[in-house]
Amino acid sequence: MKYLLTISYDGRRYCGYQKQKNGLSVQEVLTEAAQNLFGEKAKITGCSRTDSGVHALGFKATLECQDTSIKAEKIAVAMNSRLPEDIAVTSSCEVPDDFHPRYSVKEKEYRYVIHCAPVRDPFLQGRAYHCPRKLNVPLMDNAAQSLVGTHDFKAFMATGSKIEDTIRTVFSCSVTENGDTVTVSVRGDGFLYNMVRIIVGTLIAVSDGKISPDEIADIIASKDRKRAGATAPAHGLYLYDVKY
Amino acid sequence: MKYLLTISYDGRRYCGYQKQKNGLSVQEVLTEAAQNLFGEKAKITGCSRTDSGVHALGFKATLECQDTSIKAEKIAVAMNSRLPEDIAVTSSCEVPDDFHPRYSVKEKEYRYVIHCAPVRDPFLQGRAYHCPRKLNVPLMDNAAQSLVGTHDFKAFMATGSKIEDTIRTVFSCSVTENGDTVTVSVRGDGFLYNMVRIIVGTLIAVSDGKISPDEIADIIASKDRKRAGATAPAHGLYLYDVKY
Repeated sequence: MKYLLTISYDGRRYCGYQKQKNGLSVQEVLTEAAQNLFGEKAKITGCSRTDSGVHALGFKATLECQDTSIKAEKIAVAMNSRLPEDIAVTSSCEVPDDFHPRYSVKEKEYRYVIHCAPVRDPFLQGRAYHCPRKLNVPLMDNAAQSLVGTHDFKAFMATGSKIEDTIRTVFSCSVTENGDTVTVSVRGDGFLYNMVRIIVGTLIAVSDGKISPDEIADIIASKDRKRAGATAPAHGLYLYDVKY
Repeated sequence: MKYLLTISYDGRRYCGYQKQKNGLSVQEVLTEAAQNLFGEKAKITGCSRTDSGVHALGFKATLECQDTSIKAEKIAVAMNSRLPEDIAVTSSCEVPDDFHPRYSVKEKEYRYVIHCAPVRDPFLQGRAYHCPRKLNVPLMDNAAQSLVGTHDFKAFMATGSKIEDTIRTVFSCSVTENGDTVTVSVRGDGFLYNMVRIIVGTLIAVSDGKISPDEIADIIASKDRKRAGATAPAHGLYLYDVKY
């Protein structure tokens, strides 16, 4: 049997989603809960890697296990009673055997949260990037529009990444403001390593007057990582939604 | 010199505001930062005790120190660079020598946050009380009105508390709903030990049909702790504001 789980997690305690030698991963914790529930052969496969400290609201993973008497939609509840407080399965449903949580993805949405205020907020520690100055949100949103479309995003990929096909389609990119909070939302068919964090760093550089909105197209065309902005810190990033 | 600090803290890591033998207190951390900044004689005095795990948004404390060249309003920034991420001084100003952060209080406001949803939210762990069922907010708000006024609140004080004057004035008490979040807000001239948490437990008992809104006046008159509801968990409670 194969089930699709929607998962929410606070990434602060974890070395990321994917199992690693150094540090506790979300995958390990989910696998342990699944094996406790369905036996040693239960297997968890995630939709994506996430970096250390990155959060998720709509992460997807499949759970493969032998036949069970637990109804598909009750698996979420059964998993939650075996998970720590910073990970929750918000829903569960059955999927066909050929469904793959990574290869079947049609769209991913990331959100990046920036807290713009002179004083940091203790309740946003590890949950938002604290920027002590005001950001020029309309200018950032204007620049963000140049990222929309199918482009070679090599300039927005972490140096050293081994991926060869660096063409991705960004469906939308917007920057909005609500009180002290600035949110960058990006939807696309897939993202390169650190791509969203580099997009955010570039949009902050636009707000700071270091990059002009008109330069974004040139930066994309240059395929030169050095021309884009800095990589924004991991702890402001949320994998918000994944569609199939 | 005497300064009034407004302080925000996430109480999860602390044994409460007040210094204790077992565990780290907010007071200790603030005192260490103040002494690092102004020398060993700097002294911090808080407006209130808070229980282990309780949070604060508008906690007040005075800082007493020798003459300093730092401007009153810049003390917040100077303190923040010496404080951990889960405590922040949001503002600072000078006050007269006879000002006392506890005895001069005119009004305190507490808020209690309940997350009502079938599945717990990893981002609210330790920050809101998770209630997996829907609450009857209009009924709770109706019952809350019986608490307003000057009463002997002995029935709403933790058993074993040694306070003799148990008369307090509640200025307002309301229960509101916003999406999955139910908030109980209570303003008063002072509160007995666990009073807000017992009020919340009583209002939840009203929602659950265990106590009728009409009974609240009787419970107050009985002065009997056993007739009020359970003490709601500490981690949903926020000291929201203190007025002088």
